[in-house]
Amino acid sequence: MTPSKSRYCVIMCGGIGSRFWPFSRNEMPKQFIDFLGTGRSLLQMTVDRVRPLVSPENILLVTNLRYASIIREQLPDIPARNILAEPARRNTAPCICWAANHILARDPEASIMTLPSDHLVLKEEAFVKAMDEGMSFVEQNNALLTLGIMPTSPQTGYGYIQKGTPLADWPGIMKVKSFTEKPDIEMARFFLKSGEFFWNSGIFLWKSSSILEAFDKCDPKTAAVFAPGKTLFNTPQEENFIAHAFPSAPSISIDYAIMEKADNVFVKTVDLGWSDLGNWSALYETSERDENGNVTRNCNVLARDCHNSIFAVKGDKIIVAHDLDNFIVADTPNALLICPIDKEQLIRHDVMDISDNFGDKYL
Amino acid sequence: MTPSKSRYCVIMCGGIGSRFWPFSRNEMPKQFIDFLGTGRSLLQMTVDRVRPLVSPENILLVTNLRYASIIREQLPDIPARNILAEPARRNTAPCICWAANHILARDPEASIMTLPSDHLVLKEEAFVKAMDEGMSFVEQNNALLTLGIMPTSPQTGYGYIQKGTPLADWPGIMKVKSFTEKPDIEMARFFLKSGEFFWNSGIFLWKSSSILEAFDKCDPKTAAVFAPGKTLFNTPQEENFIAHAFPSAPSISIDYAIMEKADNVFVKTVDLGWSDLGNWSALYETSERDENGNVTRNCNVLARDCHNSIFAVKGDKIIVAHDLDNFIVADTPNALLICPIDKEQLIRHDVMDISDNFGDKYL
Repeated sequence: MTPSKSRYCVIMCGGIGSRFWPFSRNEMPKQFIDFLGTGRSLLQMTVDRVRPLVSPENILLVTNLRYASIIREQLPDIPARNILAEPARRNTAPCICWAANHILARDPEASIMTLPSDHLVLKEEAFVKAMDEGMSFVEQNNALLTLGIMPTSPQTGYGYIQKGTPLADWPGIMKVKSFTEKPDIEMARFFLKSGEFFWNSGIFLWKSSSILEAFDKCDPKTAAVFAPGKTLFNTPQEENFIAHAFPSAPSISIDYAIMEKADNVFVKTVDLGWSDLGNWSALYETSERDENGNVTRNCNVLARDCHNSIFAVKGDKIIVAHDLDNFIVADTPNALLICPIDKEQLIRHDVMDISDNFGDKYL
Repeated sequence: MTPSKSRYCVIMCGGIGSRFWPFSRNEMPKQFIDFLGTGRSLLQMTVDRVRPLVSPENILLVTNLRYASIIREQLPDIPARNILAEPARRNTAPCICWAANHILARDPEASIMTLPSDHLVLKEEAFVKAMDEGMSFVEQNNALLTLGIMPTSPQTGYGYIQKGTPLADWPGIMKVKSFTEKPDIEMARFFLKSGEFFWNSGIFLWKSSSILEAFDKCDPKTAAVFAPGKTLFNTPQEENFIAHAFPSAPSISIDYAIMEKADNVFVKTVDLGWSDLGNWSALYETSERDENGNVTRNCNVLARDCHNSIFAVKGDKIIVAHDLDNFIVADTPNALLICPIDKEQLIRHDVMDISDNFGDKYL
């Protein structure tokens, strides 16, 4: 496969990953660390995954200003000008709108795959094949396409996409009937059983022109923030324009701003061995377990009467644990977390409390 | 009080304190660390406590060879020749027999107080008064005296001493009726209620000649190990003699070898605010607790739904913990322990397992 010159990839890597504290830190969030012990950061693995589809000059990274230097270090073959550094933390819609405007200015014919930087994909060949097919579809249609993951369990941590009418000429691609936010467990079981619902992967494919048209229609507020820059994108004036304009963008997700509203949204259903690695339980689910259901990451553990727990350490260390069931034990040099897996939604609040009480020292 | 020239103090500081792993380490056991955050190690605090009773030239430290340099550093005013470095790890009886022989060679009239290096005494004035009275008693009698601590709770971790007939001339001193090993909780409650039983402090007072006579009678095996060195103690030949003789001594405690067998054993009952700090629960008991019964040592803790637990850290670190009841969380740079307080007797086994599996690295 030779990457087409008009195919672009936008990787969103500005998050702070606070649900993975204390492993994910303000200065070095989850996507930049060798999270799975493979020797590559999640971001590097994401870039490696799209290399068969897009040449390095066409891979763009949208991130927060503070992470630009980490990215240059981790991805030396990506041109520095391809790092779009947001001057403020907003949600995915402004990020995507800026990137689409920037790329349109480079190439009016551009098609874009937009993806998070911190997901796990086990079936890389299936990924490449699905993305290639999906890109062909959006290149030939004014369509917004998302990848829908075949669910394997009743996850309550994911959004779901309900499939609609299949397209005759495009196997595996269907009109989207509805988007659903994270369901409760009963609803998730129903979704799984029905066969109609797919996990929302957060991977999007479209032409630059298609997504910008959708912004005009569905999210004119965000569109208006970038409209005055039309002649400045991909010029030396872009940085200055963004510095002033970007902070005034609303903080809104692409799902809420566009995907749930537009009438040209499609889903391609895929089986990728995918996880969003969004929290400790997702990591637990994707990890190998010992006979007591325990997962050990980068540490020596003597686990006595411990079950279904995850032990993760940064650095050479031993953990001796007794009587923990369904716990996360995550240790770093200056922060230790001990938390039941089913209470991990509280970690984000803990992080806020730490910030309030101790400043940034432990974040 | 001017310390008498014939009064000696022997402090036993050769233990490895494995019940306090991972805080107590092979290279730096509990007695050498600033365990209570006072700025002084437990050993330094023990020496400070006896200074009103004994001059520095008469304070001897019996320890393992590997700790001699730590002691010289922590106690610069104690003469280096007062450090008796054991070439092998034995129990308390050989340690005490050697020290008594050594001191007898220096001074045939010597009286000795023998104490552990790692206990807590809150009432220091009461300690000095009791020790002074006790030393007078043993100086005037062929008696083996131990301090019995007024129990304040039904501890199952201590040995107990049953008091017998009081001595008319020596208020607070009684003949010992029996020694009892660590009781179960029911027995401990009975002991507490009876008023007849006292905690065995492991603090012993006697003349050199008295304890050596007792060794001859009650533990001739240990006595025989040191007998050939009679003319060598306190001479340049002592070190060489000990290097060869000491390892052949049996590993036996002074309680078992002498105190439970001799017929001239007495107890002085005292209230010292004493703890042997022998394990995490003893430390927990002597520490200030917050409104949830949690104890925090040297760390910032966000404890959510945690109760009656102890959090201890070496170094600047934050702990976030959820849903721990009656747990020990003890963290050091290369070892982390998470263990229910009521299972802490297992820590010693953990330490042995770590030794078997990983060598000394984490000990």
